[in-house]
Parts: sequence; C-alpha cells; structure tokens
Amino acid sequence: MDFYSTQIRDLVEQLSHLPGIGAKSAQRLAFHILNMPEEQVAGLSGAMLSARKNVRYCRDCCTYTDGELCPICANPKRNHRQIMVVENSRDMAAYEKTGRYDGVYHVLHGAISPMAGVGPQDIRLSELMVRLQNDVDEVIVATNKNLEGDTTATYISKLIKPLGIRVSRIASGVPAGGDLEYIDEVTLYRAFEGRTDM
Amino acid sequence: MDFYSTQIRDLVEQLSHLPGIGAKSAQRLAFHILNMPEEQVAGLSGAMLSARKNVRYCRDCCTYTDGELCPICANPKRNHRQIMVVENSRDMAAYEKTGRYDGVYHVLHGAISPMAGVGPQDIRLSELMVRLQNDVDEVIVATNKNLEGDTTATYISKLIKPLGIRVSRIASGVPAGGDLEYIDEVTLYRAFEGRTDM
Repeated sequence: MDFYSTQIRDLVEQLSHLPGIGAKSAQRLAFHILNMPEEQVAGLSGAMLSARKNVRYCRDCCTYTDGELCPICANPKRNHRQIMVVENSRDMAAYEKTGRYDGVYHVLHGAISPMAGVGPQDIRLSELMVRLQNDVDEVIVATNKNLEGDTTATYISKLIKPLGIRVSRIASGVPAGGDLEYIDEVTLYRAFEGRTDM
Repeated sequence: MDFYSTQIRDLVEQLSHLPGIGAKSAQRLAFHILNMPEEQVAGLSGAMLSARKNVRYCRDCCTYTDGELCPICANPKRNHRQIMVVENSRDMAAYEKTGRYDGVYHVLHGAISPMAGVGPQDIRLSELMVRLQNDVDEVIVATNKNLEGDTTATYISKLIKPLGIRVSRIASGVPAGGDLEYIDEVTLYRAFEGRTDM
C-alpha cells in the first residue's frame, strides 16, 4: 500500500482489524470517512471513545450499559422474577425484538467450552447465582442450540434445580416458515420429540 | 433499540451510517469496539480524525494524500510523461497492485453522468488540462467500462487529441480465467472487436 500516504494507510490498516471488514471494505470505508463532513467524523470517533470508556456491565444482568443498571433491569414494569439466560447482549437484543418477553435477562458473556478452554468460572455464572438469592420464579436458559450452548444449559440446570427454582430451556424445532424438506435431521428429530398436543 | 443504553445506541447508530454496514453488522462492530483495549479504540478514532483533518488532494494528480504530493507523484523514478486517468483513488490502487505500470495517475473523483447531473466541471478535468501543459507523451483513460466511464472517456479524448497528445483507452474483453460461456454478450463482442494478431 505504498501508493497511499501514511495517514490513509494507517486508517485502512486500523479499519481492516475490525471483524468482518476485509482489505477492500477497509479501503472503501476509509475513503468514505475522508469524504464525510468533519463534524460527522468527530461524532463517530467520539461515540467510539466515550462508549468504550463509559460502558460497563449492568450491576444485575451483566449486559453492557453506561449506567449502573441497564434500561431493562431499571424498568419496574418488567417481571424481575423471571430471568432469561443468554450468551451475549446481541442474543438479548434478538429476544427483545420479539416484543413478547417481559421478564429480565442474564448475560453470560460466553458459553462453557472445554475445547476452547472456557470453564464455568470464565462466564458470568456466579453473578447469576447471587441474583437467585432474591425471589425468582423461573430461569429460562436461552443459550445457543449447539454443543457449547447445550453444555452450558445442562450445567446451569444442575446448579439451579437443587434451589427449588424452575429451570426451562427454549424449544428446539422447525423454524417458522421452515420447509421440512430442507431442515437437518437433528432439528427434525428434536421437533418430533418436543411435539405438543393440539 | 430501547434495550441498549444511550451510548451503545448512539455508537450502533453512527456505525450503521457507514457504507455496506447494516443494522446487524453495526451491532457486531459496536460490541467488538466495547471489547477492544482502550488504547486500540483511541488509535482507531485518532486515525479517523487525523486522516479526515490532514488528508487533501495531491497537487498534481488529485488523489488523496497527507502531503503536498502523493507518494507516486513525488517519486522521480515514475514516468511523469505517461498519465493514467482513473475515476477514484481505489481504481488507482487497483492498478498499482498489478505492479506493471510505472507512469503516474490523474484522479477525476467521479465520472460525467448527465443522468445524475454530473458534468465535466464537477470532476477534476481542468486540473488534468493544466498538467498537459508540461511534456506528456500519452494519456491512458482507465475510467470504468460503463455508460458514465465511456462518456467521460469520449469527452476527454475529444478534449486532448487536438493538443497532439496520444490518448488511449484500456482494453475491453474477456477477463483472465473467464469462461466464455458465462460472459455477457457486450463483453464478448468487444473482445472480438479488439482482437489482436498472434
């Protein structure tokens, strides 16, 4: 990239370290930024800096937030006796978008994975156990439906059941609009196993 | 996005204005930035700001650079009598990557497009004409092979030919590794028209 001057090269280089941004997109982004009004660039770079500086874990659910509590934990209208456990803040956002869940969340920031050397102490599990000392009716485990997510779910269920709190797992099955012909065998079998009476 | 706190919402919003970055990628980028070491975030935001602040057009070829001249125009080993005209700095970078061109460039920052209301005065054409007052052997027009690029090429050629300077256009044809079966008719016809003796 000797044909670019130092500062452009530096910008392209820094942008290409972001996830999902290859060499070409980094170049495109860099030139876009060079063409943006200066106050917009200042806005973007300021948003990055201040978010990185001020955002921390919510005291209760461990999601990212800039206050002590996230907007959901701070909302008295939510059902604080129902806790949905998710792997990360994006999964929480995905469930929020359904608009049908009015309980609160707990963000683990990962999943147990012996292969990757991630143990129960590496995710925010102890924080969850502390929360269970308050009145809680149900813990819904909404970790991913893969090896790590299932392992984590089993681990959590074994930990919580002795406390006499209901532990549930989100259902596995054919997705809405799914065409059976194109669904994998494991999903089909799980949908069969999890069938409900009509 | 009420479930995110203000600063995260602001960061996601700003990122989603960048080209090629949708709502989901913006979220992913935002959380990645929240997890980056603080000095890396400072590096990235500083690179944006200082590039936007210091980068300007090269005095000769009009590409983006942070000095008075870009590295290519400042290089005495390049052939300054051969000028390749491109639409933008990325196209210049693409030709530099071939490693086979040792002339210099001229960046138009656009192409003539009557449909979009872009006329000859809206691109860096007058700067090119000024350069032609020095000794120049050839102007190679490497604008895109589409309506706007071809219109611009024709316009430039009509402008320069009366000066007695050679004007050429990059070839149209089947791309390297191209399978004829999958190439469009216009390209195939142009490849036939532009055939060379073996």
